[in-house]
Amino acid sequence: MFKGFTVLMFAVAVLMAFSTSVLAQSPDPLPSWNEGAAKSAIVDFVNRVTKENSSDFVPISDRIAVFDNDGTLWPEQPLVQILSMLAKLEALATVDPSLRERQPFKAALEQDNDYFTKEGLKAVIDVVVATMANMTQEEFEADAQKFIQTEIYPQLNQPISNLAYKPMVELLNYLRANGFQTWICSGGGIDFIRLVSGQLYGIPPQQVIGSTLKKEYREENGKNFIWRKAEIDRINDKEGKPVGIDLYIGKRPIFAMGNVRSGGDIAMLSYSQDQAQPSLQLIINHDDNKREFAYQEPDNTSLNAADKNGWIVISMKNDWQIVFDFQLTQ
Amino acid sequence: MFKGFTVLMFAVAVLMAFSTSVLAQSPDPLPSWNEGAAKSAIVDFVNRVTKENSSDFVPISDRIAVFDNDGTLWPEQPLVQILSMLAKLEALATVDPSLRERQPFKAALEQDNDYFTKEGLKAVIDVVVATMANMTQEEFEADAQKFIQTEIYPQLNQPISNLAYKPMVELLNYLRANGFQTWICSGGGIDFIRLVSGQLYGIPPQQVIGSTLKKEYREENGKNFIWRKAEIDRINDKEGKPVGIDLYIGKRPIFAMGNVRSGGDIAMLSYSQDQAQPSLQLIINHDDNKREFAYQEPDNTSLNAADKNGWIVISMKNDWQIVFDFQLTQ
Repeated sequence: MFKGFTVLMFAVAVLMAFSTSVLAQSPDPLPSWNEGAAKSAIVDFVNRVTKENSSDFVPISDRIAVFDNDGTLWPEQPLVQILSMLAKLEALATVDPSLRERQPFKAALEQDNDYFTKEGLKAVIDVVVATMANMTQEEFEADAQKFIQTEIYPQLNQPISNLAYKPMVELLNYLRANGFQTWICSGGGIDFIRLVSGQLYGIPPQQVIGSTLKKEYREENGKNFIWRKAEIDRINDKEGKPVGIDLYIGKRPIFAMGNVRSGGDIAMLSYSQDQAQPSLQLIINHDDNKREFAYQEPDNTSLNAADKNGWIVISMKNDWQIVFDFQLTQ
Repeated sequence: MFKGFTVLMFAVAVLMAFSTSVLAQSPDPLPSWNEGAAKSAIVDFVNRVTKENSSDFVPISDRIAVFDNDGTLWPEQPLVQILSMLAKLEALATVDPSLRERQPFKAALEQDNDYFTKEGLKAVIDVVVATMANMTQEEFEADAQKFIQTEIYPQLNQPISNLAYKPMVELLNYLRANGFQTWICSGGGIDFIRLVSGQLYGIPPQQVIGSTLKKEYREENGKNFIWRKAEIDRINDKEGKPVGIDLYIGKRPIFAMGNVRSGGDIAMLSYSQDQAQPSLQLIINHDDNKREFAYQEPDNTSLNAADKNGWIVISMKNDWQIVFDFQLTQ
């Protein structure tokens, strides 16, 4: 036993020496990021909080990183979940053609955005409920899974599984390699995101925060299931995001990242920033109409907040060497 | 580099040979459990689902284990959170003595259980709200933390940090060593449990599911915080437990454990059992009036459900060699 222990200690020493020398010459963990202020800010922050005995050191248990999904980890023009609801609505209308004449389904099927702008949240919720509620959790998952596996995202002509931003996948891996737990905090429906988060981002379902329907547990004929009720439980957007983070994680994240579009991530980033520990907040600016899409907020709220609070603004055009993996081979 | 690689492979081979030999003679991972049907069922199940290429193999991503807290991981006679609410109420009554004359606070302070039995949930919620709501999340945590650090659990004359059942701590460690993610799914308030789950059970706050208040995000004077509203959000008990698991984890656990008292864990165990993957359900019977407490359900619902569904019943008296760590030294 003693001799075995000596050999073991030798083996450990060899391994440690080897891995140290590998780390010393480790390749760039963010190869799809161009050198610049944004990339430097990320790498500097990670180095700071992971360096033991430094005053900025953050223990692994507090290394929580949260990411918006739509427009931060994948495209949002249009929202993938809108496409999934429309696909489901088309399927329902094939069975019951009267849906094509009834609002708000008529407007949805005809992609009459003005109708929804005019009618507001109530009309959207009616579509959500018609396509995603009044079914078991397992039925919803089977439906959504089928959509995810077969849909081609029209604007990019790519399957859903190809939609992750390559620099963001690298960033998620980089953070995890440095002891961070990576979370999604999205305005989208939690159950849909949970079906893609593992494959696209390496994030397990239990690290997804999103909007929820009310649900209940039912037993029928010796089987049991979760029933998706026709009622919104919580909208995880804007001020709902910090509430969702408190609900699911119970502590302020030290790394928070969102994007410019609706101001939906401002509260989440503010919540991350207002703490004693070192923290980093970043916001993606969609300024790349060649490789993705270029769009701004009408009132510039997110960029103004970034400017005021010192958040890092990521320019997709300038900071990312590549946006999607599939563009490498095109 | 090539030579370094050869040395590395040698080191890995030595390590693997060493760890295999250590595993072959590894000590009992559950030393506080007496040999018997319950312990065997646990060890057999863990061996089955972790054995690769076996038909019962469960991938690590699906190795989710959920545990009730009160009466399963620590005592519930009385509930620790009841003690914490009473301590808070005493503090409030010192400032505002009129509370001693107003119901339901008078009844709570006089520990008049009959009053609460008669008045029901509404009266309990009034006490919950008075002691745990209308404050910021940080204020609540500071209050609760102080209670946790100073309270002596009267029936056992021990600080809160000593209350974990030793066999359960071993079981949690054993499951985690085998790739399980361990979760609490409790009827108690989520935020209180999150403050003890790490220290007592090695479970981080983001793996705690419990009852919740409604909350909102607020900004004041350049600071932001989560405000605890005077309204119950969700009661995570009985049929609420599977709903909580769906909300936080998004999949059925393959290991679920609760205890006899109110039938509060039956739905959770049924939900765990009704799946295609191998799964194990266990229920603790409080039959040890010497080392802990002996109490039964009036109608025996949990034990009847265990009998009908083939759940493992743990006798604290017979299956546990020791209940609390502090009893070792007494």
